[in-house]
Amino acid sequence: MSLYSELFYSSEVNELFSDQNTIAAMLVAESSLAQAQAEVGIISRESANIISNCCQIEFVDIEKLKKDIKLGGNAAIPLVQQLTKVVKSRDFEASKFVHFGATSQDIVDTGSILQIAQFVNLLESKLLILKSELIKISKKHKSTVMVGRTLLQQARPITFGLKASAWLEGVCRSIDRLVEMKPRLLGVQLSGAVGSQNKNISNDVVNLFAQFLGLCPSFSWQSQRDNLNELASKLGILSGSLGKIAKDVSLLMQTEVGEVFEGAAEGKGGSSTMPHKRNPVTCAAILANATRIPHLVGSMLSSMIQEHERSAGNWHAEWEVLTEIMLLTAGSLEKTVELIEGLEVDEKRMLANIEITQGLIFAENVSLALASKIGKIQAHELVEKACKIAISKKKHLKEVLREMNLDLENLNMYFNPQNSIGNSVEIVENILKKYEN
Amino acid sequence: MSLYSELFYSSEVNELFSDQNTIAAMLVAESSLAQAQAEVGIISRESANIISNCCQIEFVDIEKLKKDIKLGGNAAIPLVQQLTKVVKSRDFEASKFVHFGATSQDIVDTGSILQIAQFVNLLESKLLILKSELIKISKKHKSTVMVGRTLLQQARPITFGLKASAWLEGVCRSIDRLVEMKPRLLGVQLSGAVGSQNKNISNDVVNLFAQFLGLCPSFSWQSQRDNLNELASKLGILSGSLGKIAKDVSLLMQTEVGEVFEGAAEGKGGSSTMPHKRNPVTCAAILANATRIPHLVGSMLSSMIQEHERSAGNWHAEWEVLTEIMLLTAGSLEKTVELIEGLEVDEKRMLANIEITQGLIFAENVSLALASKIGKIQAHELVEKACKIAISKKKHLKEVLREMNLDLENLNMYFNPQNSIGNSVEIVENILKKYEN
Amino acid sequence: MSLYSELFYSSEVNELFSDQNTIAAMLVAESSLAQAQAEVGIISRESANIISNCCQIEFVDIEKLKKDIKLGGNAAIPLVQQLTKVVKSRDFEASKFVHFGATSQDIVDTGSILQIAQFVNLLESKLLILKSELIKISKKHKSTVMVGRTLLQQARPITFGLKASAWLEGVCRSIDRLVEMKPRLLGVQLSGAVGSQNKNISNDVVNLFAQFLGLCPSFSWQSQRDNLNELASKLGILSGSLGKIAKDVSLLMQTEVGEVFEGAAEGKGGSSTMPHKRNPVTCAAILANATRIPHLVGSMLSSMIQEHERSAGNWHAEWEVLTEIMLLTAGSLEKTVELIEGLEVDEKRMLANIEITQGLIFAENVSLALASKIGKIQAHELVEKACKIAISKKKHLKEVLREMNLDLENLNMYFNPQNSIGNSVEIVENILKKYEN
Amino acid sequence: MSLYSELFYSSEVNELFSDQNTIAAMLVAESSLAQAQAEVGIISRESANIISNCCQIEFVDIEKLKKDIKLGGNAAIPLVQQLTKVVKSRDFEASKFVHFGATSQDIVDTGSILQIAQFVNLLESKLLILKSELIKISKKHKSTVMVGRTLLQQARPITFGLKASAWLEGVCRSIDRLVEMKPRLLGVQLSGAVGSQNKNISNDVVNLFAQFLGLCPSFSWQSQRDNLNELASKLGILSGSLGKIAKDVSLLMQTEVGEVFEGAAEGKGGSSTMPHKRNPVTCAAILANATRIPHLVGSMLSSMIQEHERSAGNWHAEWEVLTEIMLLTAGSLEKTVELIEGLEVDEKRMLANIEITQGLIFAENVSLALASKIGKIQAHELVEKACKIAISKKKHLKEVLREMNLDLENLNMYFNPQNSIGNSVEIVENILKKYEN
Repeated sequence: MSLYSELFYSSEVNELFSDQNTIAAMLVAESSLAQAQAEVGIISRESANIISNCCQIEFVDIEKLKKDIKLGGNAAIPLVQQLTKVVKSRDFEASKFVHFGATSQDIVDTGSILQIAQFVNLLESKLLILKSELIKISKKHKSTVMVGRTLLQQARPITFGLKASAWLEGVCRSIDRLVEMKPRLLGVQLSGAVGSQNKNISNDVVNLFAQFLGLCPSFSWQSQRDNLNELASKLGILSGSLGKIAKDVSLLMQTEVGEVFEGAAEGKGGSSTMPHKRNPVTCAAILANATRIPHLVGSMLSSMIQEHERSAGNWHAEWEVLTEIMLLTAGSLEKTVELIEGLEVDEKRMLANIEITQGLIFAENVSLALASKIGKIQAHELVEKACKIAISKKKHLKEVLREMNLDLENLNMYFNPQNSIGNSVEIVENILKKYEN
Repeated sequence: MSLYSELFYSSEVNELFSDQNTIAAMLVAESSLAQAQAEVGIISRESANIISNCCQIEFVDIEKLKKDIKLGGNAAIPLVQQLTKVVKSRDFEASKFVHFGATSQDIVDTGSILQIAQFVNLLESKLLILKSELIKISKKHKSTVMVGRTLLQQARPITFGLKASAWLEGVCRSIDRLVEMKPRLLGVQLSGAVGSQNKNISNDVVNLFAQFLGLCPSFSWQSQRDNLNELASKLGILSGSLGKIAKDVSLLMQTEVGEVFEGAAEGKGGSSTMPHKRNPVTCAAILANATRIPHLVGSMLSSMIQEHERSAGNWHAEWEVLTEIMLLTAGSLEKTVELIEGLEVDEKRMLANIEITQGLIFAENVSLALASKIGKIQAHELVEKACKIAISKKKHLKEVLREMNLDLENLNMYFNPQNSIGNSVEIVENILKKYEN
Repeated sequence: MSLYSELFYSSEVNELFSDQNTIAAMLVAESSLAQAQAEVGIISRESANIISNCCQIEFVDIEKLKKDIKLGGNAAIPLVQQLTKVVKSRDFEASKFVHFGATSQDIVDTGSILQIAQFVNLLESKLLILKSELIKISKKHKSTVMVGRTLLQQARPITFGLKASAWLEGVCRSIDRLVEMKPRLLGVQLSGAVGSQNKNISNDVVNLFAQFLGLCPSFSWQSQRDNLNELASKLGILSGSLGKIAKDVSLLMQTEVGEVFEGAAEGKGGSSTMPHKRNPVTCAAILANATRIPHLVGSMLSSMIQEHERSAGNWHAEWEVLTEIMLLTAGSLEKTVELIEGLEVDEKRMLANIEITQGLIFAENVSLALASKIGKIQAHELVEKACKIAISKKKHLKEVLREMNLDLENLNMYFNPQNSIGNSVEIVENILKKYEN
Repeated sequence: MSLYSELFYSSEVNELFSDQNTIAAMLVAESSLAQAQAEVGIISRESANIISNCCQIEFVDIEKLKKDIKLGGNAAIPLVQQLTKVVKSRDFEASKFVHFGATSQDIVDTGSILQIAQFVNLLESKLLILKSELIKISKKHKSTVMVGRTLLQQARPITFGLKASAWLEGVCRSIDRLVEMKPRLLGVQLSGAVGSQNKNISNDVVNLFAQFLGLCPSFSWQSQRDNLNELASKLGILSGSLGKIAKDVSLLMQTEVGEVFEGAAEGKGGSSTMPHKRNPVTCAAILANATRIPHLVGSMLSSMIQEHERSAGNWHAEWEVLTEIMLLTAGSLEKTVELIEGLEVDEKRMLANIEITQGLIFAENVSLALASKIGKIQAHELVEKACKIAISKKKHLKEVLREMNLDLENLNMYFNPQNSIGNSVEIVENILKKYEN
């Protein structure tokens, strides 16, 4: 792994996709193929067992395999060569039945799905943690008043819980999407050279192969890659939802805003030249990933145009790209969990910031109150005028309005943030009801 | 619409997203808002009816609206201005309640979802036609022998039905994906300035608004755009599956292959300088779209990073891109239906092409037969040697093998294409069983 | 043009790429071809003149042409048909020589380059205006102190002129890039059906054709599209530089920052529900374009893989995408010129914001001063400690340091923003020297 | 490096960007900074020499550094910490002046440019080899007749040299683009915390720093990333030109075409189940890269929107993406050199394939000859009719035309491929003249 393996990625998921584990997953596929063929009676039980016993990563010369990939064009070709050699050294008869009737892509793709299945499990358990953390802060801050901002301008008050519960909804919809995808995604690839199966790769063999691997049986998807693209794009969507969280936090951490902060840690976020800074390092990593992943998803989609029964290039284009999408999304998720777990909220600063506009953000309250009396546009125009006066004279809007002698009682009420959060609290409660259980 | 409106697009769907219809959909939202507020008692029935009566595209000065968008930054602002003016000219009181308590994004987004709902309906009905056409050719050609090709090389025989049924599976999975998405996608946007609702946008108003529009109620997704990205990426996947079909057909149409052709039409696919050519014009259009759409999906994903309660730029980045994805996908789908409906299959050429390699593509048959006797790798090497001789001496492989005096009876059997299609026919039948009903 | 033609685009450049002008440019190519062939003696002067006289947009039935594009697959085929008919109605002999020896792509590509040449001219003149505006504000604000921000955190002071002169440098490098590209880009396409020229498309004809059109002669680039991709990517880079400006301004316009503003205009940037807001509408449009264009450039690059002598799909994929890149970039540029021309700078707020951290942003001054005495890391740690105290006790850093009795004279000096802007002023002056003349 | 390091990449360039070399390049920057500051008199010569002596990769604990990157957010922060510690263990005084006045980004960016400079050198020397190989085959095959193909259909004859010389032109224009870019690209980054320089980072220091490193001096481009994007997009263009070559070769290698082949090598391109196949493995790798790189370039362009004086995320998004673009492009180039060096051309098959259409591809000859007599459209229609007859009756076009008793002498002439290659030979010669020397 590279220089940035700890910054953008998750160590656990990096490990899952190590060269060793990638090859090991292909060996699991080869072993299950032999077992399935033995079960059906195509090869002998003895041969199958010998093959399975040889399907161990320790027997593989990975450096040689990497070199040989260049000749064959995929990882299964040199792996089968090595495996056959190992088996042959034990039992000549068994060596005839290694990879029997299968094609390289069967093994590469099934190995890949085995890793993806593990990845999706890890991702889901991490997503449940994130969900529970987001529920926690939504609940805790359901009434914590802060200003809502649109187009980077203060608009009117909301609660921090409302913001967090919107994050929560995005994440939970991603969880639902992953669940729906599984039956389509987690299927074996096993259909021989051109996807037609053959007498050694019968329907029965495919079914047992799938059963042994805990996957669904499937017809050839050797050049139909919609399943992998569904995974890629759903990870892209998840990563976008996480990026949105990081963007919000990084903006709230701005020196001039200072409402929410990444958790501090010894040595974290410090600048080498500005000792006082509290850089949004975790957010920056999540945002970097969110900048990159959309293009990687686009890359996957571009590679869907696979010629005939196996593509010359676009199949190959998937391998590293799909893995990179999984690695980066796992990194973003892990970092977002850290971010939310450690999040520091400065409620006082939130309240203080509401006052920055000297009442301007409450203008809509007044506007709405007036609207029912004089009409929306008229009210809008009148309040707009008052705002301009407040700005130019640097006065509080409340004062300006008072001087305008409007037909409004209890002006203070309109300038109390608590009265301006709409249904924020109820919305948070309703969202929590949906997701808490 | 542009110069290429007929080439890359579907006229029907172009029309659905015309400026007129886009604005009309927003007016439907404004009208439903007034009706919902009247139902709940927030505004008078009379005012609501006057507003609804004014929500007609005829009353909108579209040219002025386009100019004013530049000032407000979205289409709802000038539309509400125009609408309020029209209402006011009829009834001053009612004019106070136009767009009451709503924010521009509520109207833009809900209008957009209304159009998307229509689009998804159109798409689904077109997909059912494509599905039925693909079923038809899968069935018709389930036993039509052709060569399977991997990495652009002849590999071994399949049937054309097997190829077509793989296309069918890809398309049908896309249909399933669209269905799953609907409850998440087809929801209203109505939550006021910062997503918190307000006293004029109560939960009851939202529910009635949704009910009147035939959509689901929803909390604010003003800066949570996963739903739109799910649509975008599922269209991207569909477009990839269609592109794969077009790629296969365009390759099969090559002068040197000549197995399958786009339907001919007066003046279609002719070249201005080569009167004999039969250009894959329809395929070219589908492939052009398949090149473009992945990047547009990437663009949508990039725009997910929306700041706070409404984004300064990324919301805006969605508008034309999402529409373009829908327009291009609709074009690809319409063109693929035409392609499959008109497809011409030259079964004789298919059979003839199998003979091009002088038996080489049947090498695996021999290899497999030998494998159980002498081992896979040994068999592979022996057959590889025979193939080299066949190539260098330009002899048929069968002859070369005969001269090698292998331990194989009935050599002819291995060179009969009908014996080499594996389970092609059964697979097609099983796929048809899944989708025919 | 669409609903958003005024928001994201430049009307002038939209017009340049109207359907009418696109077809007119192809007619110019056809006319010049006839003239070049007449000059060389391949066709008669009379025929050439009749052809040229018929090469007028008024004679083209654009609606019919759009429909027919679907049959032929590109715009030149139906155009040549219509043109030939018009010529034939005047002179049968001349009609034999319309589009003589040329291929559709010759006309489509050359027409496109003619439009691009005009586009590049417009772009360059607009860029010179932007350059001059950026020079103006760099000069005006070369000493206007503001805080520099890194990772969205206040770092230490710079001047606004330094920021603006960095924008200027980016823009000027884009100007240089456009200039370098021209000889490669502005070449004709004229080489017949397969790029080999022919007796009617001789080298002499190509040279004259180029000369008449004010373009360079060129060998076939019918499936070598690096020139168009150079244009696309250089526009992508320009658009990124403009997006960076818009991002900075939108952040500086934040309610909590308030240092720089888009120029106000009647009705501009107002929110429909928050009358006080000053939305960065122009920035949002530029940023939306900057989100979209990178993906469109990616789309162009993906379409470079063009098969043989003319592609089945990827050539077609270029047409709308390249135009869209030009239209959006022109929109971004026009809007950036407006943005910079109207920019309002609040120098007082800039100074006030420097005090937000209560001296923390001057920590590096102290750190550097101490570093030469006690070492960088030690100094860093000591100042970090002081900062923590200042933060926790909400005291000004200067006071905290004073209480720590450091070995530093004249503490005030380190907290004067004017003393902390490094070489900002000199850098601005040097940059201006480079570009002013 | 990953499983596919030999398949998609160049070992030499992989090595150049190893973690070790990346850190070593940053150390070179730190060392040169100290030397420059000593030269100017800011720090003592002795301190500078001690620092320089410590700037050795052996002293760096890379594993620790990787972990610490997560805290600081970039590689320079932990590197400076380690370096300072090493220096301090030798000389306390010198340790005060490590990284003196610089910011992390100065070191990360300058280190990166140092690696890029080496990369560009390697790339250019490899490009010269490719250029010379392409010159060689263009020359060798300038008269080798083959069919030209448009939209995947046989069109009319060209020579293989014409095709190769078009490849050559694309590659040579990329060489020119790289040269033009260097003065903008190969500049140092050294301007301190916010790009304003400071008293320890004076203009003189910057100039000497640049001189010692063999780079150009430069003002801050800490958040102006057009230079890196120029590199990225020019590599994207190059990779597209290489992908076009690989696409052509892979299509020409099709079993049904068989005109051109990747060089054979022991074990190369074999299929695990089809011993006779000759898979375009090298082409597949180049094409896979050409599918991926456009999206990575798009990713770079998206990351240009960098906030203020240093970005929170988009700077970080560049690191791995730009490196990946360089690695993949180097891989594509190395593989293309191998491809062209080993290219096998079957001239007989080329001639044989011209006959596949039974004369149809010579239809344009007849059409052109007739055009001057009866008009283009009339000729087109007549020949189109003859072609249809030829197709339906499976007769050679020459025979059909003969039976039509056209007003054409010497019909044979029009069906001789040698007479149908236009100016192919002259064009190749002219292109060679341009590039040979």
